[in-house]
Amino acid sequence: MLNKPAKEWIGGRHPVMEALESGIYLDAVWLAKGAKGPAESGIRQICRERRIPLKIVPSEALDRIWRGNHQGVLAWKSVIPFYQLGDIVPSVFESGENPLFVMLDGVTDVRNAGAIARSALGAGAHALVVGTRDVARFNEEAVKASAGALLHLPVCREEPLREAARYLKDSGIRLIGATLEGSVLPMEAPLTDPVCLLLGAEGSGISDRILPLLDVRVRIPQSPRVDSFNVSVAAGILLYEVMRQRGSYR
Amino acid sequence: MLNKPAKEWIGGRHPVMEALESGIYLDAVWLAKGAKGPAESGIRQICRERRIPLKIVPSEALDRIWRGNHQGVLAWKSVIPFYQLGDIVPSVFESGENPLFVMLDGVTDVRNAGAIARSALGAGAHALVVGTRDVARFNEEAVKASAGALLHLPVCREEPLREAARYLKDSGIRLIGATLEGSVLPMEAPLTDPVCLLLGAEGSGISDRILPLLDVRVRIPQSPRVDSFNVSVAAGILLYEVMRQRGSYR
Repeated sequence: MLNKPAKEWIGGRHPVMEALESGIYLDAVWLAKGAKGPAESGIRQICRERRIPLKIVPSEALDRIWRGNHQGVLAWKSVIPFYQLGDIVPSVFESGENPLFVMLDGVTDVRNAGAIARSALGAGAHALVVGTRDVARFNEEAVKASAGALLHLPVCREEPLREAARYLKDSGIRLIGATLEGSVLPMEAPLTDPVCLLLGAEGSGISDRILPLLDVRVRIPQSPRVDSFNVSVAAGILLYEVMRQRGSYR
Repeated sequence: MLNKPAKEWIGGRHPVMEALESGIYLDAVWLAKGAKGPAESGIRQICRERRIPLKIVPSEALDRIWRGNHQGVLAWKSVIPFYQLGDIVPSVFESGENPLFVMLDGVTDVRNAGAIARSALGAGAHALVVGTRDVARFNEEAVKASAGALLHLPVCREEPLREAARYLKDSGIRLIGATLEGSVLPMEAPLTDPVCLLLGAEGSGISDRILPLLDVRVRIPQSPRVDSFNVSVAAGILLYEVMRQRGSYR
């Protein structure tokens, strides 16, 4: 599954702590099961604050990646920067642009996530919003699938995602979710307002934690012969409908 | 690259000839370089007539797949049926439905081809049209990416594709191509008419053989910050726009 060159990893308590404090972008931090102590507590706390996914794994998993003494902790460098919504939302309002966000709730496929980032940048979205769990890795494959868009479109990593959704709502941004049972068609949805489009996992859709917060549940029209569109196609259709209603890029 | 179980192959002149004559669906026929004789001529002719891709390969390539005497010819069974436009177009007109076709010109990625089939079935398209060269393999991975849609949506295999495009045009079906430089936006394109949507290769787009036949060159709106949408997303957007204009599945 991994097979990553060692240069993408940082090993040992001090180097990881330094990486965390320097603010470089990390994909995840791995802690050995049962590791305890002040360094581990500090690492846990910074990961929580900076929304860096923390994985608790058997010590042997670390041994397989890191030759030498990892002291029970490894950090995986990210190929893209991560932001938080608080960095982005105020500046979007200040710029006078009409806010457009895309939130992924459980989209774990790397190629779908990349294709969605590409479409989002193409439609002029301001950021992609993801959680720290049940989310695709934004690795080289995702960057490739995004045709480089992931290097230009800010990705906001938030935990819990429900709070991020609430923050957007409180900022006056409508939450428009793609669902299978919605009664509103995309062309009837109020997409000229500031909006955040929500896409859920293939199969299970938007999670029960987020569903009650939606302002509009949109159903993409389709023949009764199929289940649903691929999630990156559904995202593309909604983003196109935003452009159509707003008259962007005519 | 292949690693296919032997049961998906048929080996030897007689068995392949029988398979060709029985009409079972074949993905491709492989002939050893330099193989000549009446059997080989017969095989070439039937492949041409039935639009079955014929690949000329070194004899060693056949040895690696087929243990035993392949006599310089192998056939690869298909997991989906293939049709020709002549089987489909007249019955669509007879049914009174509004024709909707999707033609792929150089889409070689299996997952993109599968996702396009899924969207096409979802939008009520009557068939997918492909050539025998520069086309994704419709294998298990494509069927999976299509969420099974490839088992329900007819796939027409045509050679040369230009003739198929001309046949559709002569049948009163407009050819609407997705291009980067088109002056017409999707919402301005005449999609309530009988149409065939054309999608080209990522990067190079619709080929020069097909381009002059297009009735309308459509450009999907997008920010100047990106190159283009993923081809399966572009297909999904155009199919959505067909449904929107036609009022399908409201």
